[in-house]
Amino acid sequence: MDEFREAYEGRRVLVTGGLGFLGGNLAVALAGLGARVSVLDAMIPLYGGNLFNIEPVRESIDVSIADVRDAEAVRKAVRGCEIVFHIAAQTSHVDSMTDPFTDIDMNCRGTIVLLEAVRAESPGALVVYAGTRGQYGAVASPPAGEDTPFHPTDVYSADKAAGEAYAFVYRRAFGLRACSLRISNAYGPRHQMKHSRYGILNWFVRLALDGRTIRVFGDGSQLRDYHYVDDVTRAFLLAGSRPEAEGQAFNLGGPSPVRFLDMVREVIRAAGSGSWETAPWPEERKAIEVGDFAADWSRIRAALGWEPRVPLRDGLARTVEFYRKYRDRYWTG
Amino acid sequence: MDEFREAYEGRRVLVTGGLGFLGGNLAVALAGLGARVSVLDAMIPLYGGNLFNIEPVRESIDVSIADVRDAEAVRKAVRGCEIVFHIAAQTSHVDSMTDPFTDIDMNCRGTIVLLEAVRAESPGALVVYAGTRGQYGAVASPPAGEDTPFHPTDVYSADKAAGEAYAFVYRRAFGLRACSLRISNAYGPRHQMKHSRYGILNWFVRLALDGRTIRVFGDGSQLRDYHYVDDVTRAFLLAGSRPEAEGQAFNLGGPSPVRFLDMVREVIRAAGSGSWETAPWPEERKAIEVGDFAADWSRIRAALGWEPRVPLRDGLARTVEFYRKYRDRYWTG
Repeated sequence: MDEFREAYEGRRVLVTGGLGFLGGNLAVALAGLGARVSVLDAMIPLYGGNLFNIEPVRESIDVSIADVRDAEAVRKAVRGCEIVFHIAAQTSHVDSMTDPFTDIDMNCRGTIVLLEAVRAESPGALVVYAGTRGQYGAVASPPAGEDTPFHPTDVYSADKAAGEAYAFVYRRAFGLRACSLRISNAYGPRHQMKHSRYGILNWFVRLALDGRTIRVFGDGSQLRDYHYVDDVTRAFLLAGSRPEAEGQAFNLGGPSPVRFLDMVREVIRAAGSGSWETAPWPEERKAIEVGDFAADWSRIRAALGWEPRVPLRDGLARTVEFYRKYRDRYWTG
Repeated sequence: MDEFREAYEGRRVLVTGGLGFLGGNLAVALAGLGARVSVLDAMIPLYGGNLFNIEPVRESIDVSIADVRDAEAVRKAVRGCEIVFHIAAQTSHVDSMTDPFTDIDMNCRGTIVLLEAVRAESPGALVVYAGTRGQYGAVASPPAGEDTPFHPTDVYSADKAAGEAYAFVYRRAFGLRACSLRISNAYGPRHQMKHSRYGILNWFVRLALDGRTIRVFGDGSQLRDYHYVDDVTRAFLLAGSRPEAEGQAFNLGGPSPVRFLDMVREVIRAAGSGSWETAPWPEERKAIEVGDFAADWSRIRAALGWEPRVPLRDGLARTVEFYRKYRDRYWTG
C-alpha cells in the first residue's frame, strides 16, 4: 500500500469500529503509512472487536473503547481529525431481524451522532462511510450498478441505506465532505471466528480448519461477490485520499461472481480439511436471502482506478495461513 | 367515495396519525363508508393532530391518544384490525434537520413498533404505508418514476425511505401484507394552520385569508406536484382494498406540475386577499430544497385506475371555504 504514504503520512484519521474486521485491517494499514490513527470501538461481545487485530501497530494507535452512540466520546474522538472512516455498526443481517431496535439505534442514530460530532468538531473532515451491497437487496438482473434502486431484504440493509443517505444529507445541508463504499462480501484476516452470524465465508474457514462439515443451505447455486479484505482496505485508502471520491457512492465487488458452493469447495481446498453437505434453508435465513448478487464496480474503477486484485484462491490461502498462525486469538475468548 | 362502500363496510381499520391531516381526512371517509374505524394519535403539540378533524364522525370512531412508539398501546390498537393505514410520523423536513434523533425515533423506530405489533397481533392485516416524494430527493430529470434511485435531501425523507423498506422487509421475511403510497405535496381541509414547518401551501392559505404577505424564497420557479387531499384519500382507499396494490409502492402526484409562484398566485386568487413578495432563501430551507420535482404516477393509474381528479383551482376553492367556516378550530389552540 506504499503508494498511499504521501497521502496519509502524518494525517490525523479516525476509524470507528477500528478494532473489528474492516476497521482493524484499515487501522493497521493507516498506521503503517505513518498516519496518526485513532480508533473508536465499543468492543461489544461477539461484534468482532479484538485488540489483537491492531497488535502489529498497537503502540502507535490511540484506542478509545466507546460506543458510536456515545455523543461525548465520539465528539472527543473526531476532534482534530481530517478523515473519519465510519465503519462501526451492528453488522448481522439475521440479528437485525430479531432485534431491529438495536440495529436502528446503532446504524441510524449512531451515524447521526457521528455526523453531528464531525459537524461540531471537525467540519472540514471527510467522512468515508461503509455501506453495503445489502442496500440493493434482491436485484432483478445483476450486476447492480450504483443507480439500481434499493430493495433491501433486512432491517440492517435498510438502516445502512439510511446511514449513507444521512451522510449525503449532511454534505448537502451542512457542507460536510462525505463518500460511501458499498461493500460486498469481504473476507480475510482479522474477522471474528466465534459465530456464523456474519462473515459466512470466514466462518467456513474455521469449520474447514477444524475438520468439520460445512452446511450449504439450498443448492448453493446463488452467485456472490467475494472480495479479499486488502482490496477493501485499498478502496478505503483511495476514498479517503482522492478528491474525485468526495460526494460519491461506489460499489466494491470481487474479481468475478462465484457460486456459493464453489466458494465452499475453495475454502475446503485451501484448508486441506473439512467437508460439506447440503441442508434445507432455515426459515430466518431464507427470509432475507437475496438470490444471485453481483456488483458492478466499473464506476470506482473509472473514477479511482480501483479493482479487486486478489483472486479468491489467493485470498483464501492467505486467510488460512493467518488463522493457522493466530488461531488462539480468534477461536476463543 | 361511495364506490368503496362494499370494500370497507364493517371492516376493522386502524389509522395511525388519524387525528392529523391525511389521517383525519381518511378516518372521516372510512367512517362514512361504514368501516369500524380506530385511530391512534399522539396529539403532540404542533404536529397537526386535532380532534375537530374527525368531528363529523366523532361518535363512530374509536380514538386512542397514544404514541406510535408505545409498543403496548400500538399492539392493543392493531388487535383485530384488517387494514392498518400507517400515517403517524414526524413530518417536518426542517425539524428533522434540527432534531434528527426524534425523527429517527418516530419514523424508523415507530414504524418497527407498528410492524412488530401487526406481526404479533394481526399478522393477516394489510399495512398501507404513507411514503413521500421526498424519498427521491433531488431528481436529475423529473418526473420521478418508482424506480428512480433515492437521493433524499433531509433526514425525514431518509427515514421515510427506511420505514417503507421495513414494511417490505417484513412482508418478505414474515409474510406481512404491505404497500406504500409516495405522497407528493398534499393540501386541503384538516391541515394544521399554526406554523409553516409543513404543508406550506396550506400555510399560505392562512396568510392569504389573514390578508398578509406571502414570502416566496428565490424566484419561485421550481416545479411542484400539488394534490388535493381527497385525491390522496381515494388513493389510500384503493391501496387498502385492491389486491393488486399489495407488495407495491406507488407514486401519487398532482394533475400537472405547477410553478411555486403560480401556486402562490392561485392561493391569493382563491382567498381574494393577501399578497406576495420574494425573499432570499433562508439557509435551513435552501439546504434541503430539491429543485424541480414532479412525480410520474402512471403506475398507480395503470394498476388501480387512480388519477388526481381535483384541479388546483377547485381544490383551493374548497380549502378556502373550509377554513373560512372553521377558522376558529385551526388558527389557535
